[in-house]
Amino acid sequence: MESQKNISPAVIKRLPRYYRYLGELLNHNIQKISSRELSLRMNVTASQIRQDLNCFGGFGQQGYGYNVEYLYHCIRRILGLDKSLCAILVGIGHLGQALANNSLFEKCGVRLIGLFDIADNLVGTAVGGETVRHFDTVGDFCAENRVDIAVLTVPRTETQAVAERLVRCGVFGFWNFANTELSLPDDPVKIENVHMRDSLMQLCYRLTNEGEILT
Amino acid sequence: MESQKNISPAVIKRLPRYYRYLGELLNHNIQKISSRELSLRMNVTASQIRQDLNCFGGFGQQGYGYNVEYLYHCIRRILGLDKSLCAILVGIGHLGQALANNSLFEKCGVRLIGLFDIADNLVGTAVGGETVRHFDTVGDFCAENRVDIAVLTVPRTETQAVAERLVRCGVFGFWNFANTELSLPDDPVKIENVHMRDSLMQLCYRLTNEGEILT
Repeated sequence: MESQKNISPAVIKRLPRYYRYLGELLNHNIQKISSRELSLRMNVTASQIRQDLNCFGGFGQQGYGYNVEYLYHCIRRILGLDKSLCAILVGIGHLGQALANNSLFEKCGVRLIGLFDIADNLVGTAVGGETVRHFDTVGDFCAENRVDIAVLTVPRTETQAVAERLVRCGVFGFWNFANTELSLPDDPVKIENVHMRDSLMQLCYRLTNEGEILT
Repeated sequence: MESQKNISPAVIKRLPRYYRYLGELLNHNIQKISSRELSLRMNVTASQIRQDLNCFGGFGQQGYGYNVEYLYHCIRRILGLDKSLCAILVGIGHLGQALANNSLFEKCGVRLIGLFDIADNLVGTAVGGETVRHFDTVGDFCAENRVDIAVLTVPRTETQAVAERLVRCGVFGFWNFANTELSLPDDPVKIENVHMRDSLMQLCYRLTNEGEILT
């Protein structure tokens, strides 16, 4: 099984969901599952699951189904969670602090190796076991450490400039929490946006247009 | 212009993006824009924009384009952001505190009217200007106040039970930050999940499979 190029974004989007469901099955000590059972739990058709996994070479045995643990580890590897990617977090406000204290990096096999801000009252303090560094020193830090991902929780107006500076430091992965799109070269930069505001707005839409709320 | 039923999820997903871009145009004092210009900025085809907006009755004048401010306010109304929806936040850990201190509710026209937790060291303290209440009192609170949305930042294992209790209190909108799917009746419940972990995993995938990282 080799990782492949040109996998559609829709498939990539489903992979973490497969990983999550398989992890839950493992927690319940379930060792094998048919694509039909998996499809019922995931609300995706069985043929969709087979198709998705075939993109990576396929893992099922006809009439047996999937070995949960094997498939879980394969998807972990496909997702690159076994690569020990290294991340820094820039912007140690409320959200930055919440992320620095969150287990999600560990769960994704990502090592959070540096925290950066520019505020005097934050630089030098410890957050989630790491000391906050001044962003002015990020160039030296990136020269001395491999940094694969920058998590951006800086104010929206600063995000573009911070990202451009990091690209010059050789950082190409951005996990962007600012409510704005970054304008950076597609190659080699990879950006994943978390648009929390868009998500809340969709809920507002569904509640007021499809729901019971009449105001 | 009336809000309509049966709008596709893809259209609903694009509405907040239109709203965001139009807000940026207004910040730059741009008063009118053609669907072609808007499409270039948003990386969506002009015909897609016209089609999307036609779902709600259409807003452009042939040869003139869109009046930015008018369209902005129409989309605000379509999204239900003018309805002053009321939200409570359950789970005042790091992420809950970050959200309680975030301006995103205000930006979405949502009023955050209550914070709930069960931890003795949190109940009674002030977070983002609101006093944290004990979750045991949520029933009384919902009886006395209209609660449209519950923001769930409780531990994953508690999320389902907390949500079920809230449904019994008449809360039907859930903005769920736990890395799990809620199992609740589709009607009248509306759920919007923020799967931060899935998002980080997609970035890991793209960096290790489409990017430059060789480890």
